[in-house]
Amino acid sequence: MTSPRGSLRRSERSRRAILDATRALVAEHGYAKVGIEAIAARAGVGKQTIYRWWPSKGAVVLDAVRALSENGEGQLALPDTGDLEGDLKQVLRATAAEFADPTFDALIRGLTTELAHDLGLAAAYAEHTAELEEAKRQRLRSGQRAGQLSPDADLDIVLDLLFAPLFRRWLLRTGPLTPDYADTLVEAALRAFAPPEPVTAS
Amino acid sequence: MTSPRGSLRRSERSRRAILDATRALVAEHGYAKVGIEAIAARAGVGKQTIYRWWPSKGAVVLDAVRALSENGEGQLALPDTGDLEGDLKQVLRATAAEFADPTFDALIRGLTTELAHDLGLAAAYAEHTAELEEAKRQRLRSGQRAGQLSPDADLDIVLDLLFAPLFRRWLLRTGPLTPDYADTLVEAALRAFAPPEPVTAS
Repeated sequence: MTSPRGSLRRSERSRRAILDATRALVAEHGYAKVGIEAIAARAGVGKQTIYRWWPSKGAVVLDAVRALSENGEGQLALPDTGDLEGDLKQVLRATAAEFADPTFDALIRGLTTELAHDLGLAAAYAEHTAELEEAKRQRLRSGQRAGQLSPDADLDIVLDLLFAPLFRRWLLRTGPLTPDYADTLVEAALRAFAPPEPVTAS
Repeated sequence: MTSPRGSLRRSERSRRAILDATRALVAEHGYAKVGIEAIAARAGVGKQTIYRWWPSKGAVVLDAVRALSENGEGQLALPDTGDLEGDLKQVLRATAAEFADPTFDALIRGLTTELAHDLGLAAAYAEHTAELEEAKRQRLRSGQRAGQLSPDADLDIVLDLLFAPLFRRWLLRTGPLTPDYADTLVEAALRAFAPPEPVTAS
């Protein structure tokens, strides 16, 4: 007999092992060639353990991607130093670096193109990323309260201007994913939604 | 014996028939399920005729997409009425409508996700779209000369802000491709790169 606490700890260990195995295998072989069986073997669990928690390979890969964005508490939050431009540059630079990383690229390129053809997986992805999207909007709202972003700004459009160019450049490989590019996007998006009055130094 | 002119005319007829057949078949069956053989049969030409002009299915589909953007002369140009904002809204609305069209969607969705995994096809795509990208930059330069866009604007970034959000929203189906969305993107991009002085009425 095991205590509930011990069982929970083992579950969490299995979950981590599965997500780690998924990331490693996709990086080695590419999304298309990795199956649930191989993930289970690498993680040292049975296939049924995976199917108990995830409905499909796409769902496991999604969680493997998502786990990369979690901090220790499983909570998502953007930096908030009080400087919206600086914080967004930090986030965009990190996103650009993530996209440029071959391991991460392998993990999300196949997933992304599968999303484009699979409505069910796209819906699951939207659900999975809703929390991150909300964390981004929260940071923008905090910037609005600080007078660093127009109070009328449509936050989804601000996020589009920030992240869509990075996404497209990454997916279609139309240019380098540099810190400079990240900074340029942040500056442009903030100019497009600048507050009506200049912020006075305090 | 046929005259060179008659032969050219027949070549052009075959080329058109092949591109039309490609578009129709991809719309009916999806990119992945259409082969050169089926295209040749539908167009009423031999497979060798296709391979004489195009190295791969991807290349034929690319040209089928590109032919949709050509005007009668095979030249690409953006509208230039002297009103940059109005002209860009017309172009972005047309792009949004194109993406939202099921026939066009079928044609370019499979091609786009294939581009994401095939460096050779991506390079061919970049070459194929270079002319259109240059036409877009030309329209922006004309707007700069008219004082409607900052003379310092990085035109590639302006194009990113205009088209990348539309592309991402279409590919990942994260929102509706409405005229309003197109207009909002144009307004935001132009605010981000507004000219230093307000334009005076003439």
